Amino acid sequence: MTDSRRNRPYEQQLAAARKFIEDNDRFLVVAHVNPDGDAASSTSAVGWMLERLGKRFVLVNEGTMPKKFDFLWGFERMLALDELPSEERYTCIISVDCADEARIGQVKERFAADAKLLNIDHHPTNDSFGDVQLIREDAAATVEILYDLAGTLRLPVEGELAAAIYCGLLTDTGGFRYSNTTPKVMRIAAELLAGGVEGHRLAELVLEKITYAHITVLKQALNTLSFNEDRQISWITVSQDDIRLTGATSEDMDGLILYPRNIEGVEVGLLFKQTDEQTVKVSFRSNGKADVAAIAQRFGGGGHVRASGCTLKGGLQEVVERVVKEVGQSLR
Amino acid sequence: MTDSRRNRPYEQQLAAARKFIEDNDRFLVVAHVNPDGDAASSTSAVGWMLERLGKRFVLVNEGTMPKKFDFLWGFERMLALDELPSEERYTCIISVDCADEARIGQVKERFAADAKLLNIDHHPTNDSFGDVQLIREDAAATVEILYDLAGTLRLPVEGELAAAIYCGLLTDTGGFRYSNTTPKVMRIAAELLAGGVEGHRLAELVLEKITYAHITVLKQALNTLSFNEDRQISWITVSQDDIRLTGATSEDMDGLILYPRNIEGVEVGLLFKQTDEQTVKVSFRSNGKADVAAIAQRFGGGGHVRASGCTLKGGLQEVVERVVKEVGQSLR
Ligand SMILES: [Mn+2]
Ligand SMILES: [Mn+2]
Repeated sequence: MTDSRRNRPYEQQLAAARKFIEDNDRFLVVAHVNPDGDAASSTSAVGWMLERLGKRFVLVNEGTMPKKFDFLWGFERMLALDELPSEERYTCIISVDCADEARIGQVKERFAADAKLLNIDHHPTNDSFGDVQLIREDAAATVEILYDLAGTLRLPVEGELAAAIYCGLLTDTGGFRYSNTTPKVMRIAAELLAGGVEGHRLAELVLEKITYAHITVLKQALNTLSFNEDRQISWITVSQDDIRLTGATSEDMDGLILYPRNIEGVEVGLLFKQTDEQTVKVSFRSNGKADVAAIAQRFGGGGHVRASGCTLKGGLQEVVERVVKEVGQSLR
Repeated sequence: MTDSRRNRPYEQQLAAARKFIEDNDRFLVVAHVNPDGDAASSTSAVGWMLERLGKRFVLVNEGTMPKKFDFLWGFERMLALDELPSEERYTCIISVDCADEARIGQVKERFAADAKLLNIDHHPTNDSFGDVQLIREDAAATVEILYDLAGTLRLPVEGELAAAIYCGLLTDTGGFRYSNTTPKVMRIAAELLAGGVEGHRLAELVLEKITYAHITVLKQALNTLSFNEDRQISWITVSQDDIRLTGATSEDMDGLILYPRNIEGVEVGLLFKQTDEQTVKVSFRSNGKADVAAIAQRFGGGGHVRASGCTLKGGLQEVVERVVKEVGQSLR
């Protein structure tokens, strides 16, 4: 399959990536700032392959690597930026799951002036930065591309490599639920399971575990659950106090909006997050009837037809009333 | 693959099921009492195949067919027992997802005296009732067997049949998360997606939708969330009042226990459900450290190492204290 923008067949991209890895040594492997499951899994997978090939490497990221990925191969070797010797500079870089150079963050300051970079990613917005690109937009996750790369490198997809790839697929497809769950994703998953990956254990670890801060902020938020008259709109709010008292990070608040959205009969679910006394972040989720991108745009925000957001000035209750009224009109 | 108990290779079972269907007409297709996702999907899938083969049939169940499966082919033809003409008797029965005859419930009263029954199921506890058996214990769901049967009947797995099979796989594997998610399940899913099944839409409809009663009882329950001193035990309670005021059925309370169990650091999650003033049903979920089957047994209950239950006499608070103390001792 060819990529029109990058004008290079996938097989050629894989071969170029292989050459980059085989011809070099002493790699710096970096995923995006505040790594998610695919970023963590891709870091692990690349590390595993480099180790197998007898290469030297460091794994590093800006931001916190979530502890729940501690079962991944090489987790204890995934360094924070300040753990990297400050005087070291690296000439061979492999970036994973980064759509552009900015996503690498301050790790970029550790690149040598003549550094060469291999860019492995699946984001449609990838701007082809770096010297060698291995980019496939129709991949569900960066690990899907790494699965193919292992084949090109003639490495067996087994053990911790297989687990890392399964983990990245699980997280970037929302547990095989999002529309990026392609036949290829399921075929790879089938093969990994046949090879002994404990899919149910990984699902439990990365999809089901919740933090104490998550459950406490969820409890607060559900106590605010509200509906408009015809119950087509449902919302929850998280006040500044809730955030302060529960210590919830934005990661801990992931998924809160799905509660109002998923209630039967609800067309639009809303989450109002008070970021300071006079600022409220609003998230919109539609089940299809309302175009929430258009609604968010009217408030200076944006997004997709089914998922969007905006930030409004005003008190929490005042913003709730304005937004619910606007959504109600669009549903009429 | 042979089934030692039934002593018949799977291919022969499939051929016998095919003969049963091809040689007969005017079928009664029945799933188990209070059908779940696999039962509903299997009913739909068998109906679809019979329709394709030009056979006459009725689809019937005792208990309520959950409305969320209304996208399944033939949903409007899935009758409740009292919708079946009371004088009619049926001679050709196909039971799906029923481990024994009792699971058919009162529908059995509509069988003719000389009725012949084809038993299609995946439960390891299936007692081989009926005249023709198509039973495969290592299938994740009955729909997995129906996928094979479609092949034997030379019917294409497409359209609504494909959607029904995907739906049954989704529900019986908990969205490809349970340990019954085999390579075969994932290969079938891959093929169904390649054929055009909208897996993400189905996942949204059958796994993510929640009832109003569920969210209100969840809100009540989370307000009771408690921990023991070292936070290895977490529990929630649902009082008689909560059940009465929210109108929650036991289906609406499905999954509540996962909230305490899934909190990081928790080893045992507990759900206390007050069924009357002096009776409390206790559910136990372990993350591996404690054997909750043994604990439940000490209270006259039972179950598996990681999931068990018991029923105790006493007030809600009194039962909570007794059980938490016992679990605490087993974790020491
Ligand atoms: Mn990704
Ligand atoms: Mn079943």
